[in-house]
Amino acid sequence: MCSLPVPREPLRRVAVTGGTHGNEMCGIHLARQWLRAPGELQRPSFSAMPVLANPAATAACRRYMDRDLNRTFTLPFLNSTATPDDPYEVTRARELNELLGPKGTDQAFDFILDLHNTTANTGVCLISDSSQNSLNLHLCHYLQLQNPGLPCRLFEYNSPGMETYNLESVAKKGICLEMGPQPQGVLRADLFSRMRALVASILDFIELYNQGMAFPAFEIDIYRNLGKVDFPRTADGDLAGTVHPQLQDHDFEPLRPGEPIFKLFSGEDILYEGNSIVYPVFVNEAAYYEKHVAFLKSEKIRVSVPALPELTASSTLAP
Amino acid sequence: MCSLPVPREPLRRVAVTGGTHGNEMCGIHLARQWLRAPGELQRPSFSAMPVLANPAATAACRRYMDRDLNRTFTLPFLNSTATPDDPYEVTRARELNELLGPKGTDQAFDFILDLHNTTANTGVCLISDSSQNSLNLHLCHYLQLQNPGLPCRLFEYNSPGMETYNLESVAKKGICLEMGPQPQGVLRADLFSRMRALVASILDFIELYNQGMAFPAFEIDIYRNLGKVDFPRTADGDLAGTVHPQLQDHDFEPLRPGEPIFKLFSGEDILYEGNSIVYPVFVNEAAYYEKHVAFLKSEKIRVSVPALPELTASSTLAP
Repeated sequence: MCSLPVPREPLRRVAVTGGTHGNEMCGIHLARQWLRAPGELQRPSFSAMPVLANPAATAACRRYMDRDLNRTFTLPFLNSTATPDDPYEVTRARELNELLGPKGTDQAFDFILDLHNTTANTGVCLISDSSQNSLNLHLCHYLQLQNPGLPCRLFEYNSPGMETYNLESVAKKGICLEMGPQPQGVLRADLFSRMRALVASILDFIELYNQGMAFPAFEIDIYRNLGKVDFPRTADGDLAGTVHPQLQDHDFEPLRPGEPIFKLFSGEDILYEGNSIVYPVFVNEAAYYEKHVAFLKSEKIRVSVPALPELTASSTLAP
Repeated sequence: MCSLPVPREPLRRVAVTGGTHGNEMCGIHLARQWLRAPGELQRPSFSAMPVLANPAATAACRRYMDRDLNRTFTLPFLNSTATPDDPYEVTRARELNELLGPKGTDQAFDFILDLHNTTANTGVCLISDSSQNSLNLHLCHYLQLQNPGLPCRLFEYNSPGMETYNLESVAKKGICLEMGPQPQGVLRADLFSRMRALVASILDFIELYNQGMAFPAFEIDIYRNLGKVDFPRTADGDLAGTVHPQLQDHDFEPLRPGEPIFKLFSGEDILYEGNSIVYPVFVNEAAYYEKHVAFLKSEKIRVSVPALPELTASSTLAP
């Protein structure tokens, strides 16, 4: 009985969002399925709300219409005055902020789970905006324990203090579930079933959390973003090569100084020139060519996560 | 000396086209590379001309802007009067018809090799519009002999007599080289190198053909299109399921009556109800969702291909 009771709010207002990018098909078809039959998202202490986040881009089977919706949830976009010339995704971000936020306020949803696919061979990857978010680390650990054969990694994409811009940042807490590889515009049954099962596990975790269950302390490896690496390019900005076969499909595996990262069209190899081992993530993701990202470098960090003590009666009753 | 000399025209005017679909990246980057450095396409008897077929769709990294360019090379589109409201691809088809055709005339190019990628696990696949085209069968056989470890199949997509609509139909002869799996918008180094090597082999074959080499008779299995199978859908036309894991990635493998083809979101399997074995092709190709094609059924046929006799001096000198 050494852990002190802390104020821990149950997560009652939960949303599961798919189609934030209109060509990432698992989340799109899960959201549509749940909008027809929402029972699957019900738990004793809450019912998660399914949301199809970008209906226009989903109808067009494109990542976005005018700009990347998942980079649009910043306060300047959300709080600026609407005009008829606003990009579609700016308008849609404001609508979602009204539905699930407003961002940064007490009225905001408690938790958003945002579903994504990538063409990169990431396997199952949770993306979280800060390792300070103890809930997300417990959630990741829970999924690892539930699925011992399935690598499930946590990728921390931005530094504490940096302004958040993605959909789940509208809620008080949130996480992105990313699964790959799946081509844009393709729905693979294996990934669809796995994502569906993982969402069920995540909702089960929230239910246990809401019931007040204690979660013990543990240690976990996480991957922290160190920045992007662009493709090799010609003077005109065209590709001069692409990801090296030795790096392709090797997300989250160690990349050592001197190992090849690109194969030029001339046949020459480009080697990684850093000083230390890094862990590439989002290797050759289709949507990142325009962002000048061939892959992200990350560092692997061992993190000690304190226990989540049992929820006390007073906090269970908190509004 | 039992084979009779036949009038066999050398193929002098040859084009290699990429980017007919603007998000199929191997052909796009090969065409760009060859436009910068065309030497790779030269052979003693001809120089193939590289063409980026759909520049606007390539810049947007989309299959097409207004309509599928590779369904637009029919005489009604090519010969109708231009108007300012024409879809981009109709205008572009007319331009390509001027450059490489006109279709069906003596002025047309001798051969077009059109480069494509698919998200389906087709491996290397040559697509030809008729098994009557003895040149394409000899070409396929040549590639098989040159690459003994690499399955290289010939898919015959339309029946003799049906109007042709694709880019290579503008030339007197032509073939499409299709390679998968590769996500739309992604350039994989392994597929890029393999396609580049195969194009070199195809040009080598044309060179041998032009030099008058005799090619002996042989037998070959080809796959003939039997028609499309759509995804299971709800009353609203939404997907009700997707390709079954047992069929996914199994292009060109036998599908027997009673075997599963779709997994519904309800969990139920949909079985193949045909009477005989078929060979699915383009299984779960991203671009075919909108065409209501989950896969094409094909039959596997053994074809006897007569020898191409040695080119006689008189035909070598033919214009």
